[in-house]
Amino acid sequence: MMKVIEGGVVSAKGFKVAHTAAGIKYVGRDDMAMIYAEVPCAAAGTFTTNVVKAAPVLWDRKIVTESKTAQAVVVNAGIANACTGKEGFDICQETADAAAEILNVAADQVLVASTGVIGFQLPMDKITAGIRAMAPILAEGNEAGHDAAKAIMTTDTVPKEAAVTVDINGTTVTIGGMSKGSGMIHPNMCTMLGFITTDCDIDQALLQKALSTVVPETFNMISVDGDTSTNDTCVVLASGLAGNEKITEEGEAYDAFVEGLFEVTRTLARNMAKDGEGATALFEVTVEGARNHEEAKVLAKSVVTSTLTKAAIYGHDANWGRILCALGYSGIDFDPEKVDLWFASANGKLKIAENGSSTGYNEDEATKILSCDEVTAICDMHQGDGTATAWGCDLTHEYVNINADYRS
Amino acid sequence: MMKVIEGGVVSAKGFKVAHTAAGIKYVGRDDMAMIYAEVPCAAAGTFTTNVVKAAPVLWDRKIVTESKTAQAVVVNAGIANACTGKEGFDICQETADAAAEILNVAADQVLVASTGVIGFQLPMDKITAGIRAMAPILAEGNEAGHDAAKAIMTTDTVPKEAAVTVDINGTTVTIGGMSKGSGMIHPNMCTMLGFITTDCDIDQALLQKALSTVVPETFNMISVDGDTSTNDTCVVLASGLAGNEKITEEGEAYDAFVEGLFEVTRTLARNMAKDGEGATALFEVTVEGARNHEEAKVLAKSVVTSTLTKAAIYGHDANWGRILCALGYSGIDFDPEKVDLWFASANGKLKIAENGSSTGYNEDEATKILSCDEVTAICDMHQGDGTATAWGCDLTHEYVNINADYRS
Repeated sequence: MMKVIEGGVVSAKGFKVAHTAAGIKYVGRDDMAMIYAEVPCAAAGTFTTNVVKAAPVLWDRKIVTESKTAQAVVVNAGIANACTGKEGFDICQETADAAAEILNVAADQVLVASTGVIGFQLPMDKITAGIRAMAPILAEGNEAGHDAAKAIMTTDTVPKEAAVTVDINGTTVTIGGMSKGSGMIHPNMCTMLGFITTDCDIDQALLQKALSTVVPETFNMISVDGDTSTNDTCVVLASGLAGNEKITEEGEAYDAFVEGLFEVTRTLARNMAKDGEGATALFEVTVEGARNHEEAKVLAKSVVTSTLTKAAIYGHDANWGRILCALGYSGIDFDPEKVDLWFASANGKLKIAENGSSTGYNEDEATKILSCDEVTAICDMHQGDGTATAWGCDLTHEYVNINADYRS
Repeated sequence: MMKVIEGGVVSAKGFKVAHTAAGIKYVGRDDMAMIYAEVPCAAAGTFTTNVVKAAPVLWDRKIVTESKTAQAVVVNAGIANACTGKEGFDICQETADAAAEILNVAADQVLVASTGVIGFQLPMDKITAGIRAMAPILAEGNEAGHDAAKAIMTTDTVPKEAAVTVDINGTTVTIGGMSKGSGMIHPNMCTMLGFITTDCDIDQALLQKALSTVVPETFNMISVDGDTSTNDTCVVLASGLAGNEKITEEGEAYDAFVEGLFEVTRTLARNMAKDGEGATALFEVTVEGARNHEEAKVLAKSVVTSTLTKAAIYGHDANWGRILCALGYSGIDFDPEKVDLWFASANGKLKIAENGSSTGYNEDEATKILSCDEVTAICDMHQGDGTATAWGCDLTHEYVNINADYRS
């Protein structure tokens, strides 16, 4: 039985977190967070597929594939440490060294993550000072987790947290996490920054497998602007302190863990889409009746990333032709004259197109449905039983404001 | 010797054009145009690859592949006749019938093109009235061509025309054309609506080959918003009235024709990108040193379609990390630490990044370069000798204005 609970990145047993205002780029707000685990944790991660990978991505990938365990994560917002060459990678090493020294762990147990503007070097002195400020104030509890989730935001307007408990053979296991992401969001293999912790006792290879199973269905199904970041990172740390019988093979216990992990990542992903830069509405696209799940995913993502469709959602305009158009250029073959289309929200559900043509629906009713802050388009392809859901947001004036001069 | 001349769709011998205000959707402006050739013309075309094809695309594809000749084109703006089912296709037939009757040609010699909102049926009575109004006023000359180019605009702010002459074995041959396109511009195999005429005497198969050669390098290299339209159509009509020895095989004469056709399509394409919805600047991206031409094209298009890069261009912000990021998610492999990057415009040229990291350039100088209405990014991949250029525009508040409520 999975249960959604209040909480976030320190809901699971064995984790503490701290935050600070290190003054890396932002003034008058927190911009660093540090997660610490009391014991060495099984560590798994998924990372951006962008050829241009930020230095911390290269660092963390090494930890996850070589050390396979970790005990701390140091995160900064403001500067992404991407396109920074060898100097950028050296800064990851120095960051890990600084955290390792003060936390009394090995440097290869320290994950590092950065988010912010590309192309600038991180000020190492401020990073070191931030680590030293955070180490003594590491704390448990929802408030500490919440403050950390705020500290890692860039253009985000709300922190993203989620937590669940799952029952593993009679033992309650907790999975919680936080993430940030609002612009340059079009994850491929993973998303922006996501940090998940669990007290589940689970084999590292299975932990990685579970993460690699849920990420393509959650973080990889959101898009704000079609731009796949250089810094996408999602890591999960498993402390094993829940006391469950260790999960060492696939089966019922593993499935329960995956279900919980899916719920945490889905919630974080959906909340990132809803908080897309400048967004006024979450735009959910569900494709049904595709030939298979993979094709349903491609179709749903094509619609959710369509610039024109996103602008229409902003205008509460039921411009359904743009949705059919976006399905049509997705690369998936289908018969346009078999497609049915609905809009749905808290204000109702309305069939807009049938067999690829207008149903002659009432425009006022459609506008009312599209005037909610969460709207869904449902496309039935009538080809098979493949379904998928993708999440995005509308395209607004505020998005242009934010991105026309992001760096100043 | 190719020569650029003033002119457009009726610069070549044998073509007349007319325009009218048929009141299909717009009020107080022209919204229909008709091209007529004195003689049957070899006809070639390229069309959208979108699975959802507008009815006129299906109609024209049939003409180009079956009739292979045409003598008239009827165009309307306001309604796209896309997602209109069998009724939409019947309207193409009726439009061709109406034009055929009054022009005394066969219906399978009449091409039909529509642009505008998706999902609405065309008012056949207004189309017929428009055709009857235009037939008696068909005219030659640049003014008539210019008015027709204006009549087919939707959100375009300026008409797009281009014309050249080329020397074919001592005979002067003229190639001219007009096009429209401002939003839903991300051509794949072709662009929005493009109409090209020539008096060159050329075999139909070679005419098609020439068009299929230049379109991937011109119309297919522009993007306004990443949305590949349902209506993309580019047709070329060759009257043969220039009096040149008929081109029946590849060789010097064919190459001269292709050169001229390339110049006409490149100019039209570039002007469409510059007039992208809401655009304040043409954004040109040149990739050099790629492994080959095809990879250079993919890289250039990835940058020119990057939402974040387009927003930065609007803000005159030299946010070059977004360009490297967009190269990185293009799907092409390269070494990020070998990439050099420049910004250039009428205000100068500045090296921004070298070996994937900042050159420490002067931000004020970069902003000055980016403050022109035509700006270029040059990316040297240092992998080989593949080069390509793509054209797009900036992402502005006005784009959101135009598309948040396009239909009202």
